[in-house]
Amino acid sequence: MSSSLHHTLWHGADYNPEQWLETPQVWEDDLRLMNAAHMSSATIGIFSWTMLEPREGEFDFSWMERVFETLAQNGQKIVLATPSGAKPHWMARQYPEIRRVVPERGRQAQQARHNHCPTSPVYRAKVAQINGELARRFGKHEALLAWHLSNEYSGECGCDLCFGAFRDWLRKRYDNDLDKLNRLYWSRFWSHSYSDWDEIDFIDKGVHALGLDWRRFMTHQTTDFMLHELAALRPHSKAPATTNMMGDFTGLDYAAMAPHLDFISWDAYPQWGKGGTGDDDIQTACWSAFHHDFFRALKRQPFWLMECSPGQTNWRDVSKLKAPGVHRLSAWQTVAHGGDAVMYFQWRQSRGSSEKFHAAVVSHEGSEKTRMFGEIAQLGAELEALGEVAGSQTEAPIALVYDFENLWAIANEQGPRNTNKSTQKTALDFYAPLWKGGYGVDVVDSTVDFSSYKLVVAPMLYMLKPQVAERLTEFVRAGGTLVTTYWSGLADEHDLCFLGGFPGPLREVLGLWVEETDTLHAHQTNRIQVGDSQLGLGGEFEARDYCDLVHPESARVLATYACDFYAGRAALTVNDFGAGQAYYVASRNESSFQSEFLTALVHKLELKPAIEADLPTGVVAQKRVRQGREWVWVLNFCGQTQSWTTREEGFEKFEKGEWHALQSGQQHTLPSSGVAILRRSK
Amino acid sequence: MSSSLHHTLWHGADYNPEQWLETPQVWEDDLRLMNAAHMSSATIGIFSWTMLEPREGEFDFSWMERVFETLAQNGQKIVLATPSGAKPHWMARQYPEIRRVVPERGRQAQQARHNHCPTSPVYRAKVAQINGELARRFGKHEALLAWHLSNEYSGECGCDLCFGAFRDWLRKRYDNDLDKLNRLYWSRFWSHSYSDWDEIDFIDKGVHALGLDWRRFMTHQTTDFMLHELAALRPHSKAPATTNMMGDFTGLDYAAMAPHLDFISWDAYPQWGKGGTGDDDIQTACWSAFHHDFFRALKRQPFWLMECSPGQTNWRDVSKLKAPGVHRLSAWQTVAHGGDAVMYFQWRQSRGSSEKFHAAVVSHEGSEKTRMFGEIAQLGAELEALGEVAGSQTEAPIALVYDFENLWAIANEQGPRNTNKSTQKTALDFYAPLWKGGYGVDVVDSTVDFSSYKLVVAPMLYMLKPQVAERLTEFVRAGGTLVTTYWSGLADEHDLCFLGGFPGPLREVLGLWVEETDTLHAHQTNRIQVGDSQLGLGGEFEARDYCDLVHPESARVLATYACDFYAGRAALTVNDFGAGQAYYVASRNESSFQSEFLTALVHKLELKPAIEADLPTGVVAQKRVRQGREWVWVLNFCGQTQSWTTREEGFEKFEKGEWHALQSGQQHTLPSSGVAILRRSK
Amino acid sequence: MSSSLHHTLWHGADYNPEQWLETPQVWEDDLRLMNAAHMSSATIGIFSWTMLEPREGEFDFSWMERVFETLAQNGQKIVLATPSGAKPHWMARQYPEIRRVVPERGRQAQQARHNHCPTSPVYRAKVAQINGELARRFGKHEALLAWHLSNEYSGECGCDLCFGAFRDWLRKRYDNDLDKLNRLYWSRFWSHSYSDWDEIDFIDKGVHALGLDWRRFMTHQTTDFMLHELAALRPHSKAPATTNMMGDFTGLDYAAMAPHLDFISWDAYPQWGKGGTGDDDIQTACWSAFHHDFFRALKRQPFWLMECSPGQTNWRDVSKLKAPGVHRLSAWQTVAHGGDAVMYFQWRQSRGSSEKFHAAVVSHEGSEKTRMFGEIAQLGAELEALGEVAGSQTEAPIALVYDFENLWAIANEQGPRNTNKSTQKTALDFYAPLWKGGYGVDVVDSTVDFSSYKLVVAPMLYMLKPQVAERLTEFVRAGGTLVTTYWSGLADEHDLCFLGGFPGPLREVLGLWVEETDTLHAHQTNRIQVGDSQLGLGGEFEARDYCDLVHPESARVLATYACDFYAGRAALTVNDFGAGQAYYVASRNESSFQSEFLTALVHKLELKPAIEADLPTGVVAQKRVRQGREWVWVLNFCGQTQSWTTREEGFEKFEKGEWHALQSGQQHTLPSSGVAILRRSK
Repeated sequence: MSSSLHHTLWHGADYNPEQWLETPQVWEDDLRLMNAAHMSSATIGIFSWTMLEPREGEFDFSWMERVFETLAQNGQKIVLATPSGAKPHWMARQYPEIRRVVPERGRQAQQARHNHCPTSPVYRAKVAQINGELARRFGKHEALLAWHLSNEYSGECGCDLCFGAFRDWLRKRYDNDLDKLNRLYWSRFWSHSYSDWDEIDFIDKGVHALGLDWRRFMTHQTTDFMLHELAALRPHSKAPATTNMMGDFTGLDYAAMAPHLDFISWDAYPQWGKGGTGDDDIQTACWSAFHHDFFRALKRQPFWLMECSPGQTNWRDVSKLKAPGVHRLSAWQTVAHGGDAVMYFQWRQSRGSSEKFHAAVVSHEGSEKTRMFGEIAQLGAELEALGEVAGSQTEAPIALVYDFENLWAIANEQGPRNTNKSTQKTALDFYAPLWKGGYGVDVVDSTVDFSSYKLVVAPMLYMLKPQVAERLTEFVRAGGTLVTTYWSGLADEHDLCFLGGFPGPLREVLGLWVEETDTLHAHQTNRIQVGDSQLGLGGEFEARDYCDLVHPESARVLATYACDFYAGRAALTVNDFGAGQAYYVASRNESSFQSEFLTALVHKLELKPAIEADLPTGVVAQKRVRQGREWVWVLNFCGQTQSWTTREEGFEKFEKGEWHALQSGQQHTLPSSGVAILRRSK
Repeated sequence: MSSSLHHTLWHGADYNPEQWLETPQVWEDDLRLMNAAHMSSATIGIFSWTMLEPREGEFDFSWMERVFETLAQNGQKIVLATPSGAKPHWMARQYPEIRRVVPERGRQAQQARHNHCPTSPVYRAKVAQINGELARRFGKHEALLAWHLSNEYSGECGCDLCFGAFRDWLRKRYDNDLDKLNRLYWSRFWSHSYSDWDEIDFIDKGVHALGLDWRRFMTHQTTDFMLHELAALRPHSKAPATTNMMGDFTGLDYAAMAPHLDFISWDAYPQWGKGGTGDDDIQTACWSAFHHDFFRALKRQPFWLMECSPGQTNWRDVSKLKAPGVHRLSAWQTVAHGGDAVMYFQWRQSRGSSEKFHAAVVSHEGSEKTRMFGEIAQLGAELEALGEVAGSQTEAPIALVYDFENLWAIANEQGPRNTNKSTQKTALDFYAPLWKGGYGVDVVDSTVDFSSYKLVVAPMLYMLKPQVAERLTEFVRAGGTLVTTYWSGLADEHDLCFLGGFPGPLREVLGLWVEETDTLHAHQTNRIQVGDSQLGLGGEFEARDYCDLVHPESARVLATYACDFYAGRAALTVNDFGAGQAYYVASRNESSFQSEFLTALVHKLELKPAIEADLPTGVVAQKRVRQGREWVWVLNFCGQTQSWTTREEGFEKFEKGEWHALQSGQQHTLPSSGVAILRRSK
Repeated sequence: MSSSLHHTLWHGADYNPEQWLETPQVWEDDLRLMNAAHMSSATIGIFSWTMLEPREGEFDFSWMERVFETLAQNGQKIVLATPSGAKPHWMARQYPEIRRVVPERGRQAQQARHNHCPTSPVYRAKVAQINGELARRFGKHEALLAWHLSNEYSGECGCDLCFGAFRDWLRKRYDNDLDKLNRLYWSRFWSHSYSDWDEIDFIDKGVHALGLDWRRFMTHQTTDFMLHELAALRPHSKAPATTNMMGDFTGLDYAAMAPHLDFISWDAYPQWGKGGTGDDDIQTACWSAFHHDFFRALKRQPFWLMECSPGQTNWRDVSKLKAPGVHRLSAWQTVAHGGDAVMYFQWRQSRGSSEKFHAAVVSHEGSEKTRMFGEIAQLGAELEALGEVAGSQTEAPIALVYDFENLWAIANEQGPRNTNKSTQKTALDFYAPLWKGGYGVDVVDSTVDFSSYKLVVAPMLYMLKPQVAERLTEFVRAGGTLVTTYWSGLADEHDLCFLGGFPGPLREVLGLWVEETDTLHAHQTNRIQVGDSQLGLGGEFEARDYCDLVHPESARVLATYACDFYAGRAALTVNDFGAGQAYYVASRNESSFQSEFLTALVHKLELKPAIEADLPTGVVAQKRVRQGREWVWVLNFCGQTQSWTTREEGFEKFEKGEWHALQSGQQHTLPSSGVAILRRSK
């Protein structure tokens, strides 16, 4: 990441003063209020195309120039967005081809946003032109902090242009050999063989390899579009560039896009306050942590939180108010996991249109008198005071594999279970105990280099892309510990099943053969009985959904099924392999199993948490480090006041703007939604 | 209403003898059975187009002439419908443009009914021609009682012709100033500014003001179509005209259509017998009463029940039989609320096609031997005997605001709660205690003159159309009592949010600022604790869905929240303003709150019910008046025999065709589904 | 059925070696494994079009010739499929007209399978050509056992060609008289009269007779397509032809197609293992038995099970493993009900595409080592040993009427109940006690000759096609016993309601008038109180969904309602008519009523079960006979070991490959999923 980005922990917001051109008082209020809220940046230009080019070829940058001037004077840096996320009406009417085509439903009407064809030469030319104009004018401005490419790239287009580009991409991927494609698509099934490349003009979801390739292509084409946007900026500007990615969105393979960006940013909309008890907020915190760890691991660098809501959203069935303190807690959690920025959608609520009720720093009421403004201003002051954290790193001895192509493959495949596959939920279930324990985790694609990790957890690794099995095998041989599960090792990158016995190329390292996989109806359960002295693990757990019928080969059995015709057969195994060990979890077990099993495992591996401390349930610690210095956050998500104690020495605690020495063994109180910020130098 | 309409309480039905041209016996039976059932009218010609014009330009009115002749001789008056509700196949094939266009799904196939474009010049010409032919032939016939324009106008069309008309309508509305439209649509959001009127060719639901204008336009265009129909009749006929409106249908703004009609009629399909207990029937009765009060208030005149089912419908998931007596009860409820007619869909069941199983006065069996025929014949005799009621009025000291544009706006807006907004259910919940208490209520649009009312109840008045806030403020200042709630005063007629603090222009009269609105998940509740000696109100009530966080300014707090971080803050307030008072209900409370609060309020205001009486739960009274005479109905919806007593003097009771003196203080028995009909002269 | 078919109980599978052309080892393995599994046949060529004609006019039969050769040498007979079930991409692209049109959604993209227009002359020409080529080459091959026409004919097309053919079909059906069609469609309702045949270009679902005719036409057109396929084969081949029909599929009227086939085959996918208890498997077994009895009764001849899954499917939400023994049990049940073949989809799992996880005899693992292979091989040996059963018949004294046109009519009609009509479930509910009792049942269309039956059960016979009422009346008059129910006798073949009182032409034989039909909400129930000494029936049963209000005329009342305003009225009646009796079940009662009522009835009628025996719940017997010899299967579906005893003499039992004498009165043990196979000669 460019070093200029590490100046501070940024505090900013999406800012659309062009909606208020007719009310100069609002512009004046904004400047005053930004400083009152300790805002260090503002993001402008998202969706501003019609205000920059109100008619084809008629440009008007005057209002944006005024924004640059006044913000620079006022002390805010600027994140400048390209406007490609929403094309103007005039353009959609003049060039209908730029509207997306939805398969079998024709071309979309002009509406909403994120609706352009990523292939259209006309649209690309228009984007290059407006980006170039922006970069030429503002690309070297001293207030320019970063480029914000478009907005939340997403969706797909099935027009002739896109299918043409898809066929070109396929020709390249399959060496211009249609027979090769036919073989790898197993297209003789149901007579789906192609006799001509031009026959590929529709995505038949039943041809799984075709569906996978289409998704891969859409990532490729979107990335290509993004690079086209960037290419128009670069002649005029060296400012670092990002695009705002999204939590829970798996339509684009972010792991493939990340290398092309200077730094990663994402938009987080966790659902705080879903329940009456604190449990839901702990789950929400876990969801947030998981995504922070995923986006940070994309480049193993600090990331930005480009969007979060200061209060309610406007697009959920029900959006709760953020209770006092929750926003601050959520913001410090972001920083604790490697975030160097906390930014809002949005600075000021719009008066009209679809998101007028989305929360903002400044509400329709318009002043600093609101509760939310007060909380944001206090947080802004704290972020300002803790600027030293910016740029520091995260240590992660654990990798949790969360591979988007694998998610797609599982979603596409039609197998013994076509509902409640719950791939993402399963990843979170294996992540949760590691997060609760305060361990550093990288959430990663399956193709990363595993050599720096002690433990790799790869649940439901259905698809093994090239070299992944080899790399995992080598990782274990060299002393690493691998955990994988049911529904792993079934298919290759073309979704062709492995022959000769599952889990295919992982069979050796796991030391077993999976002959059959039973799937359970929603009302059915099994139980597994665990007994392993090595891990100190015992007891009985409920199993649901998936139950593999396993033949251990070299593996040892650590648990067996209690019910059904496969009672007594292996449900958990471990295989000693080289200098390491490989565990196989054969059934989908209740969460307490994941918790007890993984806790036992990290203890056995002697991994170190963020801080050695007694933390009650729902109180979680995270750590960042730089050059012998470390910062630790103790975050209380449990919804009640709690006490905690650390056994470690040498920490200071940040309170009321100052650092105070912290005594080891002393009991500390954390109010509900409270945050303790510690640091020490080694 | 034309005085000829007040001749009697009409008893009639939709009559389609053209389905039985080949079976003269059926025509003869019908005449005999109509008299046996005491039918005073018949509605003919609905959906008869292909029988009147079987091929383009070939007309055949012979069968209809025969119907006029025979019915006139038999003693029935005729309600004559224009046939525009269902266009012939030959027309749809010859002129495809008359079929509707569904956005993004192309032009509809010819099917069903209510499927014509309201703009098409060809269709309008065809309608004018057939209407003219009908009027020329039958417009002055002595048996003609009224015109029935089309049938259940509804739906929309998105064809180029309609969009062209929409753009013309918008030009007029926005003074031919596209910038003005852009500003009021807040269209800079997501780059939705228009640079040319012709760009307005699709309804983007996210642009709320556009969606609202489209609905307004569809009311305008449908009304215009209706007036076009009427214009073709008027040169030949002075008979009063109506169209049959629908309960629960909010697609057209009936308040805007009503002034163009001579009298109001509606189609009611209450769901009697939904539950095992009587509670559901009380709710069904409340639903019916609410709609009677709405349709009567449209012109503050007696209305017609143009359609009801004598038994089961054929278009619900499950349609119950009407138990003995229920139909009579439902019919007298209609009259009690201002109905001057009880008419059926339909006279005789069709043998085939989609509604063949919809109940009718004469079933497939074909004789007078059925239970249903017997009950209808008895009711017919009673209506005949009570003809004196026709034309009498209803006194209503209370207005309940139920504004369709406001309903649309709440449905369209995307805010903190996008499910279970329950605007209509909330209106019913505030209406129910007033109805149960026997108070006269006008259910009205927000733009009416409030000066004649003592109490105005305006729940969820999200949108304040021009002058509404001013008029409500003036109403309170002059001594009126206003009740409004959460989710009121947020936006103007363009769905632009009020700046400076909610509830915008109602802030002064209510004396408070609503800073935030929490919304609760389905499984979440709060509680409010009420204590007000002035109203004599106390206790604790459950709150759900919406909880405003209020800053009282001049208002006094009558209740506070018991839970969550806003425990202790105001949940019910009252503001003394001028000579009146304005109440604010900050949360959506359980029904018993509405019941206790509004009952306390009407007592405080000393409003008079239909009759001073002890009525058990589920027994409800309604009153009509004319020139010193009053009629009161006591209606038993509770499903069990009940006793009741009145404290008033001077009433007579109608029994077995005669009036008998009623002693005050005496206990009367009402069987399940029983009706007591009283009158007195003052 | 051709006598060559009776050679043995066939054991086979769909076999697609063309997917493995590049791996000769797989071809070799297959031959070895087929013999190891005792496979006597293989079905080839389904969906093989692109491998037979990879480009237009370029044919390649070499691989198929090799399959014929090697299988013949290896000892397997061949069932040869025509490839019309999946058209090649090249053909769909060259001739877009062969793709189906979905009304109002345009022409389908080329995808999946079963997607061709059945009318298209081009497609018919292509099919005739490829079928001719196949027949010319293989039609007289000694290994050819039978023709398999296409695959699972289904679906519909709404293109102009199909509508043209539909109009021709209508002209013929209605004597080229459009007025006649209009009258029978009751098309004056909603002005739906046609003035020109060409106006019939869309299926308006509300015009029920039109919807029915469309379904009839689609059966006609599909049959016509099938005969076109067959005509291309017959010049070159005399081998018997079938097509694989489907259980639970009612889109085509199989009763109308059956006469055109040489023998019947069907594809069965029962859902074993749905619940924790054995009850669900008993229901699944009942579903299977019902369909076996339906498909056998189509020609009153043995049928083939053309497809079943050896394990899990891949297209259900959740597919359970088949527990040990379940497959064998299911296979013998097939034979017990008249099946002469047990065949699998599929021989070997495909590596890729949509059904790669569908179970197969040979799994991805590829060897004979799997549990499933072992069970199949054992079953294969048993089938081989019991070849004597092939060609034997089933005796059925009972007919259960299950008429597809009636199902369609009930599905289409819009009446007092439009949800949970449950016509098929009701048929199963009446079938279950007969099956559990071991009685022979033919499941038949309503137009069959009833004279050979003792008991006809016709639940929900809403539609009475021509002569059906007459034939049922004659059946009773001649001494037969008829049972029918609520929602019977309402409409004729044009879905025109009967006038003069329901159940129309069945009124006389049943001796009653059904005045009204109440329908109950899901949460509502009634109860019926039964007391009949003649049947020895008594007690109280719950009623749901439908409750007829009946006026007995000549019928006697055997049960009355306990609740609602019709308490005390008739709920079950019997009418003595001629030499027989006709029962009317007026309400939908809980299953135990059907069980007790029908059990009492078969005892009264002295019908004989498969075997006189004490069989515990879930253990069921079936019988086949030929020339004085009989075979009986005792099948244990209850999920637990059970004991049983027979009172009959002279049986032998098949055990370990040999027949052993069975002593009457002796207790026998049947393990869970066990099968006892008995025989005797009389």
